[in-house]
Amino acid sequence: MLTNILSANDRLAEENRRRFDERGYTVVNLMGSPGAGKTSLILRTIAALRDRVPVAVIEGDIASRIDADDVAAVGAPVVQINTGGTCHLDANMVSQAAAGLTAEPGSLVFIENVGNLVCPASYRLGEHIRAVVLGATEGSDKPFKYPKMFVDIDVVVVNKLDLAGAVDFEREEFIRGVRALTEAEIIEVSCRTGEGIDAWTRWLTEHLARAVERGA
Amino acid sequence: MLTNILSANDRLAEENRRRFDERGYTVVNLMGSPGAGKTSLILRTIAALRDRVPVAVIEGDIASRIDADDVAAVGAPVVQINTGGTCHLDANMVSQAAAGLTAEPGSLVFIENVGNLVCPASYRLGEHIRAVVLGATEGSDKPFKYPKMFVDIDVVVVNKLDLAGAVDFEREEFIRGVRALTEAEIIEVSCRTGEGIDAWTRWLTEHLARAVERGA
Repeated sequence: MLTNILSANDRLAEENRRRFDERGYTVVNLMGSPGAGKTSLILRTIAALRDRVPVAVIEGDIASRIDADDVAAVGAPVVQINTGGTCHLDANMVSQAAAGLTAEPGSLVFIENVGNLVCPASYRLGEHIRAVVLGATEGSDKPFKYPKMFVDIDVVVVNKLDLAGAVDFEREEFIRGVRALTEAEIIEVSCRTGEGIDAWTRWLTEHLARAVERGA
Repeated sequence: MLTNILSANDRLAEENRRRFDERGYTVVNLMGSPGAGKTSLILRTIAALRDRVPVAVIEGDIASRIDADDVAAVGAPVVQINTGGTCHLDANMVSQAAAGLTAEPGSLVFIENVGNLVCPASYRLGEHIRAVVLGATEGSDKPFKYPKMFVDIDVVVVNKLDLAGAVDFEREEFIRGVRALTEAEIIEVSCRTGEGIDAWTRWLTEHLARAVERGA
């Protein structure tokens, strides 16, 4: 039965993708543990791309609209999905939310998934880019313990670089773990200090340009 | 169908509980996000209770036996459950693992759940104590975003207290969030520095004594 649910989700994800392409959106499915810094990375990206690329956000949470309020406060279009108890977003939730999103053509649209390093990996949403954020404070063993999250991913963002020393984050071990699963880009940032945000937005805008070429 | 799965799980959890009581175990279901410090807290507890209370561990992970190896290295009995892809432990997995656990009567047994602040909340394992660990680095908004984890819990351990200042952890907001959901004990620790571990083991041993009285 799980196979049927997943394939029904995949079909709806393809529909989402077509609609995103029609509207000229480049969509990032942003995944990671609770507190990894997904919203902080979105807020940093909005600030860094201001006046260059319009950014909009679909916020996914079990409950609350804390993150949506933070995004709205900096003036970006945002819609909130509350999943109730569900541990991940799915293509149907995103389809409904996207219908209510007023983002201009050419927008970079973040879908912030529920904080969870397991379940979101199995559900495509129609995204162009699959990204995972990890806090250095989570430890370097995460790729070994949660491999599925890293198998089919475009970019791995290591956040909280400013605390990496304080927690003895083992960078080499982490990279070795990621590289055993994927050739995805690895970008190290600190959303607190702003370190590395340039490299992240450079990577993003390159992929934005490619997505626009694909659509042209 | 989910209701049936959950009630089947509950029945098996009750069986586990009877077996734990027969063997004189006090069992803690230890939940929390990836990297919250669940294994670190277990290792600190083993060290603090050495020569007073025997401690054994059932380790749950999607993949790897990194945590089980760390526990075995300090000489505690341990069995590893690898869930494959499943985002939480269930009573059946624990039943099978517990059969292979050679812990002496009177043991404190930790079941370290899969790192996930969502799914484990819905599955009883037969535990006497339900505990959640959160890193201060995860942010103070977690009770608002993941309420189910806090509704039916005996103790909330806030870890990484040594980093609370560096990440501007808003303690009052966090406590307000927890208190809206539960009257559970809140204990603040740093597994890195050892701060607060005394209060944690004192709370644990008090509950251990009560569990022994119940069994007597």
